[in-house]
Amino acid sequence: MTLQKSNSLNPHVSVDCVIFGFDNGQLQVLLIKRGNNNGALALPGDLIRNNENLDEAASRVLFELTGLRNIFLQQLRAFGNPERLEGNSDIQWLNSMREKPQARVITIAYYSIVKPGKLHPKPSSFASEVNWMPVLELPELAFDHNMIISQALDHLAASLKKEPLLAFEMLPRKFTFRQIQKLYEEVLNKKIDKRNFRKKLQTADILIPLNEKEVGVSHKPARYYQFDKKKIKTKGWL
Amino acid sequence: MTLQKSNSLNPHVSVDCVIFGFDNGQLQVLLIKRGNNNGALALPGDLIRNNENLDEAASRVLFELTGLRNIFLQQLRAFGNPERLEGNSDIQWLNSMREKPQARVITIAYYSIVKPGKLHPKPSSFASEVNWMPVLELPELAFDHNMIISQALDHLAASLKKEPLLAFEMLPRKFTFRQIQKLYEEVLNKKIDKRNFRKKLQTADILIPLNEKEVGVSHKPARYYQFDKKKIKTKGWL
Repeated sequence: MTLQKSNSLNPHVSVDCVIFGFDNGQLQVLLIKRGNNNGALALPGDLIRNNENLDEAASRVLFELTGLRNIFLQQLRAFGNPERLEGNSDIQWLNSMREKPQARVITIAYYSIVKPGKLHPKPSSFASEVNWMPVLELPELAFDHNMIISQALDHLAASLKKEPLLAFEMLPRKFTFRQIQKLYEEVLNKKIDKRNFRKKLQTADILIPLNEKEVGVSHKPARYYQFDKKKIKTKGWL
Repeated sequence: MTLQKSNSLNPHVSVDCVIFGFDNGQLQVLLIKRGNNNGALALPGDLIRNNENLDEAASRVLFELTGLRNIFLQQLRAFGNPERLEGNSDIQWLNSMREKPQARVITIAYYSIVKPGKLHPKPSSFASEVNWMPVLELPELAFDHNMIISQALDHLAASLKKEPLLAFEMLPRKFTFRQIQKLYEEVLNKKIDKRNFRKKLQTADILIPLNEKEVGVSHKPARYYQFDKKKIKTKGWL
C-alpha cells in the first residue's frame, strides 16, 4: 500500500474552488489564467494528492494557485461527465501538463463566499494571473467550469433566499439598502422591486439603522445599516 | 481516447446509494450483504464505468445490486478519506473482487427517500441479500458506510425541519399524528414533546383531517390525516 499513500498526484480526481465575492456592485468569482495555454481562464483547481483527503486538497490547491489561505471551503458536489475534459484547448493543456492526459478526471467542487477587499490573491504554480471576474459576464472557461459556477450560483441563490445572514458575509460592515438589494439582484440575476424588497427587509427585522449616511455621493445620501446578528437565526419549520 | 470511453469499470471512483424509508415506525436504510465476504453489510455501491456519468452510475449500480429502478437519486457529496477502504475485511473483499484492489477509491454518495412497502428489492450481482435495516440500530458496515449514512441522515433531518412536505414522501397516504411524530423522532433521533409538536403542525396548516379513524387498535383510535399539498411550499425569506 506504499505507493497509494505517497504524496504523488492522483491522476483521476481533482478539486475546483468557486470563490464568490461581492465588490463594486457586482457578484464576482475568482479565476486563474493558465500560464502555458493561451491564457485560458479557469477555476483554481488541480489533481488531488494520493495521501490527502478532499477538503485538504481543496485548501492546498487554492493556496498553491492563488496564495489564499484560511478560506472556509464547503464541498458543493462532484462533477463527472465523461466528456468534461475534451475541449480542444483543454486537451492541449492536459497534454502539456499531466502525466496521464487521457485519464478521465472526476472533479469535486468546493465553494466559498468572501469579501474580496480583504484578500490579496497572487498567482503561482501554473497560474499566470488571478483575477476577480463578474459572474454575469463570464467568457467560456476551461473544462466544465462555466457549469460548475452556474451550479454554485444556484446554491448561493437558494441559500441567500433562505438565510439573509449570508449577505452579512458578503457586504461591508455597514451598507445601504441599495447595496443589499444590488447583491440580491446579482445573485438571483433579476431586478427586484425596490419597495417590496425594503418592506420584506423591514419585516424580517434583522437590520440596525446607523446614525450615519453616505457622503460625497451625487444622489440623495442614503442611510447606512448593519446586520443585527442576534436576530438572525436559521428558522426551520420545527 | 478509445480506452477511456469504453464501458469498463473505472477503478478509482465509485457511487454508493443511501435509500431511506420509514416503515413499522422506524427509519430504515437499504443494505446489501456482500456474497463472498462473510456477509459484511454495505450500501449498494460499486465502481463507475468509464463511459457513464455519475448519476447514471448510481442508477445502474442500485439496479444491478437490488433490482430497484426509477428511484430518484440525488447526489449527497463525495467521500475521499485516503484510508476509507482499509478495514481488514474490506481489504479481503477488494482483493477478491477488484482488478486493482489497492487503488484509492473516491466515492460519490447518492440518497433517496422512498416508501418501502411499494418496493420489492431483490439481490443480484455480488449482493447475496438485500434488506431494510433500522438506521438507529446499525452494526459496523463496510468501508466508511456508517459515516456516509450518518451524513445523509443529517441532511435528511435538516431538510425535514425546513420542509415538512418531505414527510409526505415517507408516510402512507393517510396517517395519524402519532405516525408523523414518530417519523420526526426517528429522523432527529430524539423525543419530541407531543403537545408542542401537534401545535406546530396545526399552526403550519398543512394537514387535512379525514373523516376516518384507526380501526382494530388497542388504544383510543386516532384520526387519520393527509397532507394538503397545495398549502406546502418551500418558504424562503425573500
